Amino acid sequence: MAAGHSILLCFFLFFFEIQIAAKNQKEALDALYKAKFFRNSNAADSSGFFVRNEVADQITDVLPTVEIHDQTGRKQQDKIERLPGQPPRVSLSQYGGYVTVNKTAGRAFYYYFVESPRNKTSLPLLLWLNGGPGCSSLAYGAMAELGPFRARSDGKTLFQNDLSWARVANVLFLESPTGVGFSYSNTTSDYQSNGDKSTAIDNYAFLVNWLERFPEYKDRDFYISGESYAGHYVPQLAHVILSHNKNAGKTIVNLKGIIIGNAVINDETDEIGMYDFFATHALIADRTSKDIKKYCNFSPNTTTQNLKCIKTMKIVEGNTNMIDIYNIYYPICGNKSLTDQPKKATVMNYDPCTDYYTHAYLNRAEVQRAMHANVTKLAYRWTPCSNVINNWSDSASTVIPLLREFMDNGLRVWIFSGDIDGRVPITSSKYSIASMKLPVKKSWYPWFVQHEVGGYAEEYEGGLTLATVRGAGHEVPSFQPIRALVLITHFLKGTPLSTFSSS
Amino acid sequence: MAAGHSILLCFFLFFFEIQIAAKNQKEALDALYKAKFFRNSNAADSSGFFVRNEVADQITDVLPTVEIHDQTGRKQQDKIERLPGQPPRVSLSQYGGYVTVNKTAGRAFYYYFVESPRNKTSLPLLLWLNGGPGCSSLAYGAMAELGPFRARSDGKTLFQNDLSWARVANVLFLESPTGVGFSYSNTTSDYQSNGDKSTAIDNYAFLVNWLERFPEYKDRDFYISGESYAGHYVPQLAHVILSHNKNAGKTIVNLKGIIIGNAVINDETDEIGMYDFFATHALIADRTSKDIKKYCNFSPNTTTQNLKCIKTMKIVEGNTNMIDIYNIYYPICGNKSLTDQPKKATVMNYDPCTDYYTHAYLNRAEVQRAMHANVTKLAYRWTPCSNVINNWSDSASTVIPLLREFMDNGLRVWIFSGDIDGRVPITSSKYSIASMKLPVKKSWYPWFVQHEVGGYAEEYEGGLTLATVRGAGHEVPSFQPIRALVLITHFLKGTPLSTFSSS
Repeated sequence: MAAGHSILLCFFLFFFEIQIAAKNQKEALDALYKAKFFRNSNAADSSGFFVRNEVADQITDVLPTVEIHDQTGRKQQDKIERLPGQPPRVSLSQYGGYVTVNKTAGRAFYYYFVESPRNKTSLPLLLWLNGGPGCSSLAYGAMAELGPFRARSDGKTLFQNDLSWARVANVLFLESPTGVGFSYSNTTSDYQSNGDKSTAIDNYAFLVNWLERFPEYKDRDFYISGESYAGHYVPQLAHVILSHNKNAGKTIVNLKGIIIGNAVINDETDEIGMYDFFATHALIADRTSKDIKKYCNFSPNTTTQNLKCIKTMKIVEGNTNMIDIYNIYYPICGNKSLTDQPKKATVMNYDPCTDYYTHAYLNRAEVQRAMHANVTKLAYRWTPCSNVINNWSDSASTVIPLLREFMDNGLRVWIFSGDIDGRVPITSSKYSIASMKLPVKKSWYPWFVQHEVGGYAEEYEGGLTLATVRGAGHEVPSFQPIRALVLITHFLKGTPLSTFSSS
Repeated sequence: MAAGHSILLCFFLFFFEIQIAAKNQKEALDALYKAKFFRNSNAADSSGFFVRNEVADQITDVLPTVEIHDQTGRKQQDKIERLPGQPPRVSLSQYGGYVTVNKTAGRAFYYYFVESPRNKTSLPLLLWLNGGPGCSSLAYGAMAELGPFRARSDGKTLFQNDLSWARVANVLFLESPTGVGFSYSNTTSDYQSNGDKSTAIDNYAFLVNWLERFPEYKDRDFYISGESYAGHYVPQLAHVILSHNKNAGKTIVNLKGIIIGNAVINDETDEIGMYDFFATHALIADRTSKDIKKYCNFSPNTTTQNLKCIKTMKIVEGNTNMIDIYNIYYPICGNKSLTDQPKKATVMNYDPCTDYYTHAYLNRAEVQRAMHANVTKLAYRWTPCSNVINNWSDSASTVIPLLREFMDNGLRVWIFSGDIDGRVPITSSKYSIASMKLPVKKSWYPWFVQHEVGGYAEEYEGGLTLATVRGAGHEVPSFQPIRALVLITHFLKGTPLSTFSSS
C-alpha cells in the first residue's frame, strides 16, 4: 500500500511538471493522452490537463450559424512586405493577420498565408494544421516543416526552404484554437473551454471569413492537411465543411480531400500501437510491452487503470524519456542558446533546436509588426505550444466514422506516417486502418523518390491511401523534406506514388 | 501448377544471380541463409551456395593437433612502414602479412594488425572477424568500421578514423577462411571445402602461430569480436581455444571474453526475428509477415518449404530489395565510380559507397606491396566478399550451446545490435537470447554517451549482456562510431555501460 502510494505520488509530480512546462508537441500530446487515459482516476484529477468528454462522430450534432464579417480591404492590409531577416531575392507573396471567428467573444485566429511563387492562380489551396492540442502551425508547419523560411540560430534571420510545399500549393497556416500562438480571445474563459467541437466550429468560421478576404480562392480546389492531434482537427473541420455544404445545398467550401500524418485517429489502436512500436524498436523490453497490454485497458469506455499499469508505464517512461520519441534516432537539442552568428543551416539537415530559434524570432517586436501579429499585445509570449491552455472540453475517442464519411462522399483521404516517430507511430496508423476492415486495392509496395525508396504505401477500396515516409519522424517535412514534397505533390494531383526507382 | 512452376523458376534465377554476384555482406549472408532454408528443396540444389551439414555444438568433436611453425624474424618483415596515401602525422604501428595455417595444403591467411598508438603494452589484444561467409575483415572491420583508416573516393588515398578501436585495444583483423580477401590455399579443392568447423580450426592455427610471431601478446588479455556470420566464427574459435587450453591443462591463449554484433546465433529465431522486424518497421505488410510464419517452417529439422512460403518470400523480396536492409534508413550507394579528387569524408558521415573505394585501394599494386599482401599473385582480384567461395560444408543451426559453455567458464559474453539493421536485427538477437531463458540480472535500461541515449542494455545471470546501439545498422562502427567505441571500451574494461546522461 505504501509502495502503491509512492508510485502514485511520482505520477502526480510527473503530471504536474508536464502541465506547467507544456512547450513542445511531445509534452502537449502526452498530457492529453494521459489525461484521457486516466480521466476518471485520481491521477487524472491532479493532471491539470483535464478532458471532460469524449465524442466520436457527433462532432456537430447542432450545426451553428457562421457569422460572416466584412473583409473589404483586409487582404491588402495583411500583405507582408518582407519578413525581417528574410534572405534576398525571394519572390513570393506572404500574408499574415487576424480573422475574427466570434465577434461577441472577441475571438480571433492568426493565420500566415504563402502564395506559390509560380502558378498561384491554378494551384490548389492547402490548409495546414498542427496538433497538440495547443501547438502552433506557425511554430511547426510554417517555420520547421513545410513553409518557405526557417529561423536561423541567431533568432533574427531566416534561411530559405526551397522544398517548401508552396512549390505545389498556396499554403495557409492557421494557429488554432484560442490560446495557441498569436490566436486569442478577449473572453478569458475561452482559454479554458477549448475542445474538438469548438475548434472545428471556430476553424470553419475562420475559413469562410478568410475566403471572404481572399475571394479568388473561393472556388479553388481545397485540401486540408495536418499532423499529430490535427488527426482530429482536419477531419472534424472537413466534416463541418461537408455538413454546411449539404445544408446549404451548394458548395460553400470546395473541399476535395484531406491528408493527415502521424495522426491521432483512434485512441485504443493509437495507444497499443505506440507501446508495440517501443518494444519492436528496442526502446522497451518485450516483457514491458506485454505487461502494458496485460495490465492497462485501452478501451475508450474504461474509467480506471490499476496500479500495475501505472507501475509499468513508469518503466516505459524511464526507458523513453531521454530520447526524442518524435524521432527515435535523432539527436536531442543539446544547446538551446542562440548564437551571435547564425550557424550554417540547410533544409536537408534539420536542427533539433529549431523550436528555440523560432521562439526567439517570433517574439521579436519587429517580426510581429511585419507579420501583423500580436496586435492586441497579449499578456504572454508566443510559444510553440500553448502554456495557457490546460483544459480540453471534448476529445473524440475516434475519428474513423468521419474518415468513412469522407470516403462515402468521394473525398480523397490519405494517411501518411514518418516511420521513425514513436509517438503516433506507423504501427498505430496501421492498427487504426486495420480496424476499418477495408478491402485492399493495391497491396503494400515501395514508392520511390530519386532512385531511393521514399516509403511504402497501401491503397484501399473507397479511396483511402496509407503512405509511409522512410526515415522521417513525427514532423515529416522536417526530417525528409524531399520525400514529403513528393508525397504532397502526388496527393494534390491525385496521382499514385511512383513505383519505379527511375523516377 | 503452371503458376507454381513460374514462381520456382523466378526463384532459381534469383538464386543464380546471387551466386555469381556475391560481392557484399548482404548478398553473401542471404545466399547462406537461403541455401540453408531450402537446403533439401529443388531451389537449394540450384543455388550454387550449397550447405552440406548442420552441426550445433559438436564444432570440434575431434580436436586436431595444431602445427606450430617457426616465426623467427617474421614480425619485422610484416611491419608496414606506411600505407600508400596515408595521411601525415599518424603514429601507430601496423603489420600485415601471411600466417600459414596448413603447410601441407599451402593454406595461408592474411592478417592486418594495428597496435594502439598509446599504452600498447598494457591494452588487450582484440581479434575482429567479419562474416559472410566469405566477407573480409579488411573490407569491413578494418577499412569501413573500426580500423584507423578508410579509403577515400579516389581509391588511392586514406583518411583517418580517429574513433578507431585501436584507441582502446591492439586490434587484429583476419581474412578467413580460404578464398576470403587475400587469404588463399595452394590446394584448389580447399576453396570448396570451407565450413564452420574447418574455419574454426584454421583460425585457431592462425592465432597460435600469430602469437609465436608476436610473442609479447601471448599472455595478454585476449578478446574476440565480430559481426554477422562471425556470430558463428567468434564462438566457434573461442570454443576451440577453451578446448585446447583444457586439453593442455594450461592457458595457451588467454581468452577472456567474446563480443558479437548483429550476429547469426540461432537460425530459427534469427529468421523469424528478421520477418518480424520487417513488418514492425513497415517494410512489409503485417499480413505478409503472418503468411511467412504460417507457410514457412523455420525449424532446423525442416527439409522442404511449400510453394506458398516461396510465394510470400517473393513478396518480401519485392518489398525490401530496393533498400539496404543492413541499414533500413540509409541511402544506398548511388554512384560507384571513383572520383579524380577525393570527396570530403569524415568518419561521422559514413559513405555508402565505401566498399567500392576500398576495392580500388586494395587492388593497387603499391598498396598490396606495402601491406605484404597477395604475394603469390592470386588469379582473382581482392573483393570485399569472396567470389570464389560458393560452397559451405557445415553451418551450425545454433551457437547457443557454445554461449552457455562460455558463461559456465566465466568468459565475458556480450551481444550487441545496431538497432536499424534488418538482416540480423535486434529482434532476432532478443528472440535468440529469450530462448536461453536466462534470469534477468539488470532489466532493460538506456545507456548514455555524450548526453544522448547510446542504446539500451539488459544483463543476464551468468555473465551475458545484450546491448543495442541506437541508430546503427549492421556494421555498427560505420554508422555510430562514437557509440561503438564507448561500447567496446566498456566491454574490454568489464565496466557497465553508463546509465547517466552526464557521462
